[in-house]
Amino acid sequence: MATLNVPHPVPTPEEDAQALRKACQGWGTDEKGVIEVIAHRNADQLRLIKLAYERLYNENLIKRLESELSGDFERAVYRWMHPPTEREALLAHVAVTESDHRVIVETACINSTNELLVVKKAYHALYKRSLEEDVASHTSGDMRKFLVALLGTYRYDGPDVNIRLAESEAKILHDAIKEKVFSHEEVIRILGTRSKAQLVATFNRYKDEFGVSITKDLSGKTSDDFVAALRVAVRCIVAPKKYYEKLLQSATSNPGYEDALTRVIVTRAEKDLKEIKELFEHRTNALLEQAISNKASGDYRKFLLALLGK
Amino acid sequence: MATLNVPHPVPTPEEDAQALRKACQGWGTDEKGVIEVIAHRNADQLRLIKLAYERLYNENLIKRLESELSGDFERAVYRWMHPPTEREALLAHVAVTESDHRVIVETACINSTNELLVVKKAYHALYKRSLEEDVASHTSGDMRKFLVALLGTYRYDGPDVNIRLAESEAKILHDAIKEKVFSHEEVIRILGTRSKAQLVATFNRYKDEFGVSITKDLSGKTSDDFVAALRVAVRCIVAPKKYYEKLLQSATSNPGYEDALTRVIVTRAEKDLKEIKELFEHRTNALLEQAISNKASGDYRKFLLALLGK
Repeated sequence: MATLNVPHPVPTPEEDAQALRKACQGWGTDEKGVIEVIAHRNADQLRLIKLAYERLYNENLIKRLESELSGDFERAVYRWMHPPTEREALLAHVAVTESDHRVIVETACINSTNELLVVKKAYHALYKRSLEEDVASHTSGDMRKFLVALLGTYRYDGPDVNIRLAESEAKILHDAIKEKVFSHEEVIRILGTRSKAQLVATFNRYKDEFGVSITKDLSGKTSDDFVAALRVAVRCIVAPKKYYEKLLQSATSNPGYEDALTRVIVTRAEKDLKEIKELFEHRTNALLEQAISNKASGDYRKFLLALLGK
Repeated sequence: MATLNVPHPVPTPEEDAQALRKACQGWGTDEKGVIEVIAHRNADQLRLIKLAYERLYNENLIKRLESELSGDFERAVYRWMHPPTEREALLAHVAVTESDHRVIVETACINSTNELLVVKKAYHALYKRSLEEDVASHTSGDMRKFLVALLGTYRYDGPDVNIRLAESEAKILHDAIKEKVFSHEEVIRILGTRSKAQLVATFNRYKDEFGVSITKDLSGKTSDDFVAALRVAVRCIVAPKKYYEKLLQSATSNPGYEDALTRVIVTRAEKDLKEIKELFEHRTNALLEQAISNKASGDYRKFLLALLGK
């Protein structure tokens, strides 16, 4: 469930556009006024507000907000103001240029087959190139092979599972991990092309047969980027909400995770952030709002907390 | 343009179903009667005939024809009777199990981005697996990397071309070919992920800069399967009709090419077989009908010639 909190009744798009215009005019920006509107509207309402704003003031609302705001707050607002699919394409594009493989793996593994396709179409429209070619030309070696397979495969998304295949491929994965040849081409093939249902069966079989989960077997073995990407892929395929919950734990307790914090809150607020927040609070015995308050400050903090439904 | 010849007025689907039933009944099959109907109907008409046949006789028409016919004729009819998209999925599936990489490369490179997507969806529906995972699990090494990239990439299909990129990537390709490291991961990346418009620009640049076409540079260097697949990919991307024309030349002058002969005629009869035939006749100074008559025989020959518009 979403954490996003939309008032009833909601103002018209024109009224919201006027309120945003007012917040942006004169000396200094009224950040509180901006947050009051945009952090309490869903993607479709924001789309209509942008159209109304453009019509009324002949100006692009996102560009105006960009010029008014700054820092982490600006970046969070910029991401939030884009429609969900374009936002994911945009996040992937930033990730490509910054070699942030984690985001690429999330995009490839958390989205369903058809959601990923829609993100790839949005990428074409925005950048006049394919996500695959950009990822391929910014990576090399095993990482390239793995990411191109993960992103490229139009995964079968039915529930059908081949149990014998799960057995044999669990063994292949275990042998590769035991021998520390993580980059074994069979590992890339299995994670990169099998359906999610099949992979979950394979990972379950792995645990039953070898007594330990594949994620645990992949943990702490090496600080290698490639192994980290494998682990992220497994976790995103098996339990995306749990993955996000752990990412929030890292983001609220370590320096330098602002992009991840923004990404989780902004991309999940309208989807499943409520469950992710509950998981977080169950695991850490602390309120997510408190953890974010300790980490973020100023308008950035206010904005994230508003998206969390405060 | 198509070579398919549909009569005007065309009988109703029920009349056609009755005629086919009649041709299949009694002692021996009236193959001429079968050809007269099915080789002169387009995909949509065949779809309606199959529905009418099922309704009238409570029997699957394709299965009935399979049991009545045999040999190359049966295989050609079986392929022809499937809707174009399913037919391509079916051809790809046969190619996977028979390790016929040429067909996989054709599927990946001749279809547009969205046509390929539709074939992949049909593959999911028919086989409950993805084409990518089947190809990956039936290949290995460089061939796997190449085919997974070719099939997987949702290629950008706009006309935009980056000239500087074409220059630098033409050089990368040339260096790899000169040093005979065809499997160089950059070769796989470029052919596997760039848009067709970009690749055509790169190949043109290759010829301008190095005085010889990339296809010529890839020809006759080695009998390696992988280099052959690279060459097929380049030819399918640059000039699919010319590619098919050359394939018809091989198929009509060498033994063991029946599947290729069937594939070209059956898959292109309703699309561009007229242009392919004209190219063939221009290049060989012989009628395509004559070349096929020399190669094929019996009802198989009659069927192919009928699809050619005879």
